[in-house]
Amino acid sequence: MTMLAPEQTTRPSRRPFLAATKQFAAGTSTPQDFLEACLVEFANRENDVDAFVTFDLDAARAAADASTARWRTGKPASPIDGMPMGIKDIIETADMPTEMGSPLFVGWRSEKDAACVSALRQAGAVILGKTVTTEFAATEPRGTRNPFNLEHTPGGSSSGSAAAVGCGMVSAALGTQVIGSVIRPASYCGAYGYKPSVNALNREGCHDYQSQSCTGIIAATLEDTWQVASEIVTRVGGDAGTPGLVGPDTCPAPAKPKRLAFLETAGWANAELAAQKLLQDVVSALNRAGIDIATRHDDAKIAAVEADIVDAHPLSNKINGFEGRWFLRGARERDVSKLSKVMQTRLGESETMTLADYRAALNERARIRALYGALAGTFDGCITLAASGSAPNGLASTGNPAFAVPSSLLGVPALTLPLFEIDGMPLGLQVVGFFNDDARAFAISGWLRDQLGGA
Amino acid sequence: MTMLAPEQTTRPSRRPFLAATKQFAAGTSTPQDFLEACLVEFANRENDVDAFVTFDLDAARAAADASTARWRTGKPASPIDGMPMGIKDIIETADMPTEMGSPLFVGWRSEKDAACVSALRQAGAVILGKTVTTEFAATEPRGTRNPFNLEHTPGGSSSGSAAAVGCGMVSAALGTQVIGSVIRPASYCGAYGYKPSVNALNREGCHDYQSQSCTGIIAATLEDTWQVASEIVTRVGGDAGTPGLVGPDTCPAPAKPKRLAFLETAGWANAELAAQKLLQDVVSALNRAGIDIATRHDDAKIAAVEADIVDAHPLSNKINGFEGRWFLRGARERDVSKLSKVMQTRLGESETMTLADYRAALNERARIRALYGALAGTFDGCITLAASGSAPNGLASTGNPAFAVPSSLLGVPALTLPLFEIDGMPLGLQVVGFFNDDARAFAISGWLRDQLGGA
Repeated sequence: MTMLAPEQTTRPSRRPFLAATKQFAAGTSTPQDFLEACLVEFANRENDVDAFVTFDLDAARAAADASTARWRTGKPASPIDGMPMGIKDIIETADMPTEMGSPLFVGWRSEKDAACVSALRQAGAVILGKTVTTEFAATEPRGTRNPFNLEHTPGGSSSGSAAAVGCGMVSAALGTQVIGSVIRPASYCGAYGYKPSVNALNREGCHDYQSQSCTGIIAATLEDTWQVASEIVTRVGGDAGTPGLVGPDTCPAPAKPKRLAFLETAGWANAELAAQKLLQDVVSALNRAGIDIATRHDDAKIAAVEADIVDAHPLSNKINGFEGRWFLRGARERDVSKLSKVMQTRLGESETMTLADYRAALNERARIRALYGALAGTFDGCITLAASGSAPNGLASTGNPAFAVPSSLLGVPALTLPLFEIDGMPLGLQVVGFFNDDARAFAISGWLRDQLGGA
Repeated sequence: MTMLAPEQTTRPSRRPFLAATKQFAAGTSTPQDFLEACLVEFANRENDVDAFVTFDLDAARAAADASTARWRTGKPASPIDGMPMGIKDIIETADMPTEMGSPLFVGWRSEKDAACVSALRQAGAVILGKTVTTEFAATEPRGTRNPFNLEHTPGGSSSGSAAAVGCGMVSAALGTQVIGSVIRPASYCGAYGYKPSVNALNREGCHDYQSQSCTGIIAATLEDTWQVASEIVTRVGGDAGTPGLVGPDTCPAPAKPKRLAFLETAGWANAELAAQKLLQDVVSALNRAGIDIATRHDDAKIAAVEADIVDAHPLSNKINGFEGRWFLRGARERDVSKLSKVMQTRLGESETMTLADYRAALNERARIRALYGALAGTFDGCITLAASGSAPNGLASTGNPAFAVPSSLLGVPALTLPLFEIDGMPLGLQVVGFFNDDARAFAISGWLRDQLGGA
């Protein structure tokens, strides 16, 4: 494999998969062709973008060959048979190490596929490699650059997944989110991002130990996104003991919402003016289209939710801190010098918590979830920004997650749609739905995309 | 380490820990002394019993030295500081491999402690080693023998944990149960066994992927059992997102029940006559003590529960099969020759299930759980046998789990009390409680133990 010199002359673009499979079925193209196009982008850009920790081009090509043979016989394993994908390196793979963005796990092997990876392989997905995650899917960046501007962060913690999808090295990638780790990087990298209802996709083999964590999907289109989720849940379900993602086998058709709630969250006050303007223009356009959009300023129920989710981040940190501290203690004992300073600080904070503190935080979360759930009777869904602006300059921080945290705390589905742009850098419109009604959030998102001229 | 010749002349006996700590506090004995007594038993018996996959006597002695120093300064890390323990080899340990009873994972290292192990180390427990589990904590035995008779099975899947506790190589050991893997081996090996309410003890780092699986405890006394559970939940909670084990910091005081339900389960019809007789004698004794004991024959609610839990095993197999099949598929792909025939068959059965089948099975389980839960208003708890008899002759099977499955399906706490004996082989009286009221099950168990002359 010769790594070509970077020759980025065109704007990065996503690489939709489902649309291409019509050609596979017709015999006018193959998964091999599709993969090779991805690999050209990979060859041109990976040296700069640094989206992958580990990759195996030979294995990917072999998988694409097998997929091509299945399409030729008219028996693809699934609608995503042949889809080039990346797997966030916090998720286990049998054939590659799982390093979790930590020097403590360099070369470490689980010797098994995570449940979601097992499902994807069964469905015929072509796994190109493991994508860069921040340290333990948290805060400390690991060097990935934004394909739209290499000086800017791709966001985190699913940094590599978002960057790889944003510039079409793969059609889709798995991420995880417990604070803002899918929605924010997808927004920054111009991709669709989907954080499902909590428990909707089986998390076994993902090394994030928090109760509000989700395996999420970053993909080229809304339809690709849903299909990946659907193929996972069909084969391995949601988290054990739960029904898993509920919905049709293919992406729900676009459906016009009647009433939407506009959520400010803790992010609005500090959002870039240009970003605020973009969302306000959307609200105006939707009003003109006959959609009723309520806000905290004219609806008491929304105001009550806003008053609580403004603290979504500190409350999430408490819960996540208690749930993850056993793991971080072990990491500290092994070699504290290999744990970032920010992680050491976070561990120190969680050490002060008692079981009673944790239970109180869970009760508080349950209370806020119930309050938010009551909106479902009145509204079809919520809209807000996916981030406070486009990806900030610099690689030392993965950006502000304020807009993404509420759906994590609430355990509800959230989508970012790559509809906005500020000075050439992408920004997402976020749709937040209701628990276990992910399908409705997709239907609304499809309509918004069509209405607002997205692809 | 010289392995002494087996010289078993006395009946195996458990090694209570909490009682001994009074001597540690008084300075008349030390955790070092306590460990050395365990190691004499280990030296005498391990070659025959084969309770451990991996052990590290030097590490155990170093931990006992540190514990001794803490007791000397009057600052033990917890009431179980210095307790010699075994960890079922399906549970991760940073300093030893986790082989899961499978040739596919020989020498495999997680590079971290499971949440419960992390808690135990923090509490000062002295970890002697990893105890033998059947293949992936399921059916295929791995050679451990019953310390009461080497020709008999110790039960499974927590085979080594039960055997090691039964003959006092350690005071307590961790097990796991998704069908009958704690209650049955503890019964066969003359130990206390405790399967908590589902989610009550944090399962992260335990390689059992089923929603009704629990981390359980096998120990020398009821008080030791509770204390181990309490020290775990205090430090690492229950499964993420749940309140975890509810109850006092030390073992609930014995409390006389007013009304008990006698559960036949699917096991009664095929139980040994001697075992039936032992339980019937207990019922008579409890009646004489003024306790009202109802059965399916005189109580409609119990009859309704019995009618459903008679199928606890096949329903559990369905649920467990769907939840575990992604893992077994991966194992089969790696090397089918290293997967037992029974596991291959089980995987084949689970492959026929759809997501809809799985959801239907979950709904059925929820229905039965609600039916059982309604007994809590009328009864303080339930009693039954822990197994259909004492440990059967032979090592090819780990015995019949029929009496243990209902509490697994129901997600409720269960305890086996080593109160019975048939021809010199132990058998347990089982107490089954109600969800998240494990403390009441312990209180009743304590009273039954005292009343029935147990130790």
